[in-house]
Amino acid sequence: MIKVRRIRCSSFAMAGSEAKKPVAKQSGGKKKEVKKETGLGLTHRKAENFGEWYSEVVVNAEMIEYYDISGCYILRPWSMAIWEIMQEFFDPEIKKMKIKNCYFPLFVSPGVLQKEKDHVEGFAPEVAWVTKSGESELEIPIAIRPTSETVMYPYYSKWIRGHRDLPLKLNQWCNVVRWEFSNPTPFIRSREFLWQEGHTAFATKEEADAEVLDILELYRRIYEEYLAVPVIKGKKSEMEKFAGGLYTTSVEAFIPNTGRGIQGATSHCLGQNFAKMFEINFENDKGEKAMVWQNSWAYSTRTIGVMVMVHGDDKGLVLPPKVASVQVIVIPVPYKDADTQGIFDAVSATVNTLSEAGIRADSDFRDNYSPGWKYSHWEMKGVPLRIEIGPKDLANKQVRAVRRDNGAKIDIASAELVVEIKKLLGDIQQNLFDVAKQKRDECIQVIHTWDEFVQALNQRKMILAPWCDEEEVEADVKARTKGEMGAAKTLCSPFDQPELLEGTKCFASGKPATKWTYWGRSY
Amino acid sequence: MIKVRRIRCSSFAMAGSEAKKPVAKQSGGKKKEVKKETGLGLTHRKAENFGEWYSEVVVNAEMIEYYDISGCYILRPWSMAIWEIMQEFFDPEIKKMKIKNCYFPLFVSPGVLQKEKDHVEGFAPEVAWVTKSGESELEIPIAIRPTSETVMYPYYSKWIRGHRDLPLKLNQWCNVVRWEFSNPTPFIRSREFLWQEGHTAFATKEEADAEVLDILELYRRIYEEYLAVPVIKGKKSEMEKFAGGLYTTSVEAFIPNTGRGIQGATSHCLGQNFAKMFEINFENDKGEKAMVWQNSWAYSTRTIGVMVMVHGDDKGLVLPPKVASVQVIVIPVPYKDADTQGIFDAVSATVNTLSEAGIRADSDFRDNYSPGWKYSHWEMKGVPLRIEIGPKDLANKQVRAVRRDNGAKIDIASAELVVEIKKLLGDIQQNLFDVAKQKRDECIQVIHTWDEFVQALNQRKMILAPWCDEEEVEADVKARTKGEMGAAKTLCSPFDQPELLEGTKCFASGKPATKWTYWGRSY
Repeated sequence: MIKVRRIRCSSFAMAGSEAKKPVAKQSGGKKKEVKKETGLGLTHRKAENFGEWYSEVVVNAEMIEYYDISGCYILRPWSMAIWEIMQEFFDPEIKKMKIKNCYFPLFVSPGVLQKEKDHVEGFAPEVAWVTKSGESELEIPIAIRPTSETVMYPYYSKWIRGHRDLPLKLNQWCNVVRWEFSNPTPFIRSREFLWQEGHTAFATKEEADAEVLDILELYRRIYEEYLAVPVIKGKKSEMEKFAGGLYTTSVEAFIPNTGRGIQGATSHCLGQNFAKMFEINFENDKGEKAMVWQNSWAYSTRTIGVMVMVHGDDKGLVLPPKVASVQVIVIPVPYKDADTQGIFDAVSATVNTLSEAGIRADSDFRDNYSPGWKYSHWEMKGVPLRIEIGPKDLANKQVRAVRRDNGAKIDIASAELVVEIKKLLGDIQQNLFDVAKQKRDECIQVIHTWDEFVQALNQRKMILAPWCDEEEVEADVKARTKGEMGAAKTLCSPFDQPELLEGTKCFASGKPATKWTYWGRSY
Repeated sequence: MIKVRRIRCSSFAMAGSEAKKPVAKQSGGKKKEVKKETGLGLTHRKAENFGEWYSEVVVNAEMIEYYDISGCYILRPWSMAIWEIMQEFFDPEIKKMKIKNCYFPLFVSPGVLQKEKDHVEGFAPEVAWVTKSGESELEIPIAIRPTSETVMYPYYSKWIRGHRDLPLKLNQWCNVVRWEFSNPTPFIRSREFLWQEGHTAFATKEEADAEVLDILELYRRIYEEYLAVPVIKGKKSEMEKFAGGLYTTSVEAFIPNTGRGIQGATSHCLGQNFAKMFEINFENDKGEKAMVWQNSWAYSTRTIGVMVMVHGDDKGLVLPPKVASVQVIVIPVPYKDADTQGIFDAVSATVNTLSEAGIRADSDFRDNYSPGWKYSHWEMKGVPLRIEIGPKDLANKQVRAVRRDNGAKIDIASAELVVEIKKLLGDIQQNLFDVAKQKRDECIQVIHTWDEFVQALNQRKMILAPWCDEEEVEADVKARTKGEMGAAKTLCSPFDQPELLEGTKCFASGKPATKWTYWGRSY
């Protein structure tokens, strides 16, 4: 089974993230031609009230609109474009791996859903059931997919007969529904979300093992190369792994402001458990009956929320250039008595030059907003680079570029425009990652004892501890750290293991440690 | 409102299309390494039992798998790839028109759904309702979107304040659910289907009018340039238009075998009715309060079904090259004592050469199937061009190409490979369209009197008739032609109108005719 928490669940959500949703200002009374609220600043600060800040940013940056059904959100073009850019990277990559796209139904019949015991157990409380169509009661209630293992695998059993039918490698881009009742949070925890789910079957464990890591590497690249969010690749503990599967790997991010880990995406080796349950057998090349080895893996719109949390600041969203649908916004700065038409022409020419060079550039010619208002507006929306063109720039055959990430102002000769802007966008992308990594690394604390562990947890650290890797010890740590803030649990055992000196003891049990593992509170 | 029938509904489905679904052969008893059933021919003939033939083709060509919930179907990679190719055309085209993608929730609250009276009336009987999550009853049942007007427009009202917020042009790619109880048919009529739905708002009717036709032209191009299916662009009658809207345009296809028209896709001008209902107002450039003009438009996976019905034959599917995920299948034909390795190398080299030239080519090296079996298999799957390479071809430095559309065999010198194959693929694309158009045109019958009308209807024609354009006359024609086969109705009044001589009378009422209109039975 895929437990919800593997993908996007947390034990503890941000308090009040939806309860106090910032709609009052938006829906405001009379519909006059007023200046938009976006760009007029945030009322909450990231460092002071993270939950409120987050809700305000995603709304004011026009990524999300709150919907009249709790836990459902509208993805506006500004966030949808990010999802599409990630798709444009990931989809061709998996196609290179000979994974093919398909589409399975939204609905699951109860009989199939209940076939895998752990699976039902994990999802039962949050499955949405259709019981009526029009005025008629359905004979049998029908479930909406929370994930598609049980939707797909009966057909894998049918399609796979011999070793020549393997590997079978399918993926789908779709919506899934998990009717959770804990605090919903845009992107991070919503009742409906978009994701891709890959489901593959192999003749051998070796092939399955290799694919788990190939996919995990793609997930790392989405986070690190696209979203500029540092993640740690590792293996989940027995307690935190995908129940019913053989082992789970994940990329783990960390939110310094809340001191919580957040599971970025997961790549599971299911082993042969689902194959047993759904009788996915084949005749191998020796003519013997064998059972397939399976993987499943997914990343969701949660990725966007992690990016907002990591990079956003008190001016609003900060978008890494690689995922920004507008990388450069060009704003005319006309002065009284200046050559306004000349400035406007220069703005248009700049956008054209950049667009032709493959840079996503746009202009803001609106005549009812001041340049200053526009600066704030596009800062709120997180555009990586702003170009201002005023009379002085026109005279000097230059433009002024202003970086969203650090506010730096750079004058660029028009002749050097494309080269310099490309370089700047590259620098911003790298700088966002470097700064985020530095902040994340500052939160990592190596500990050896229980006391150190508790202290680090109170300081909201991402804790790296020597561990005996025993399930009951993790259960014990959870029990002992239970409280208002939520219990600590393992995040992952990093693939990149520091040296474990002989005789190192588990921080919690005192038994011999077998590995270094990350611990912390999490989403 | 958008009535279901505008997009994909019909009064009468193909008899038995699901009842007798051809699963018996597929699910067959023991799971041995046996030859696949696909490629072993069809048991039904297109001309003799169209419904059975269609169901068999979509399954045996591995486009569709029947699902354990009636009316839901699995889109396998072979059909999903067609959907993706159409998306790759349509999505950039609408982005050029500054239409942006977004994602609105799957769920609708009853209050909003019921806001537009005609809308509810049209959809109420087929709305699926979620009433439970886990074991808990929901306080208020929640509907699954049958289409997204009521989901979206409350937010259009919120987002649109002044003329500078217009036009607002959004699109989403998503699934929708219509729990119909009439005969389900893969692609053509399913309870869940994939589509895009565009929803736009403008300050003026002129802009809305222009967009309706721009989108309709894209739909024509999908059918004619990609699916090689001839369609007629026209306007729906008052009775058949999108109720609640101002007018509906559509592209109409025709299935000669059943003598039924089929609505391919629709582009509606909604006028200001939804704007009234949802209070989508704005302050215009004169400072006055005004109401927006809206359009909505959609095409769905139905497109794929129309293509199958039009081009398929008794050997199986026939794919137009532009939408085929495999355009050329290369098959080695080794003989005893021949240079098998040389043949295999030539097959690989051929695939490489074609792939590098941007042609979607693949090889079939499977050693447990004969070349003859492979020919049938890929014919069943509709691959436009087969290349055979045997000892003689190797010796002559040539390959043999065999066309799926007409069976023609052409020897091609290896040196001319890319040029000749590109030319052949272009020819096949054009020929499929020409043949389909000729067949369609042969079905078109111009009539002037009621007797001629009845006779043409019995001959399963697409009837072009002079009409007075009165609603009660259409209702009367429907009533008078009611029967086992289904009543006749208007398909569309073509934009391309033949000359209407003065004094021409309506075929049905005898009143003066005002336009030529297509009539027929339809899906």
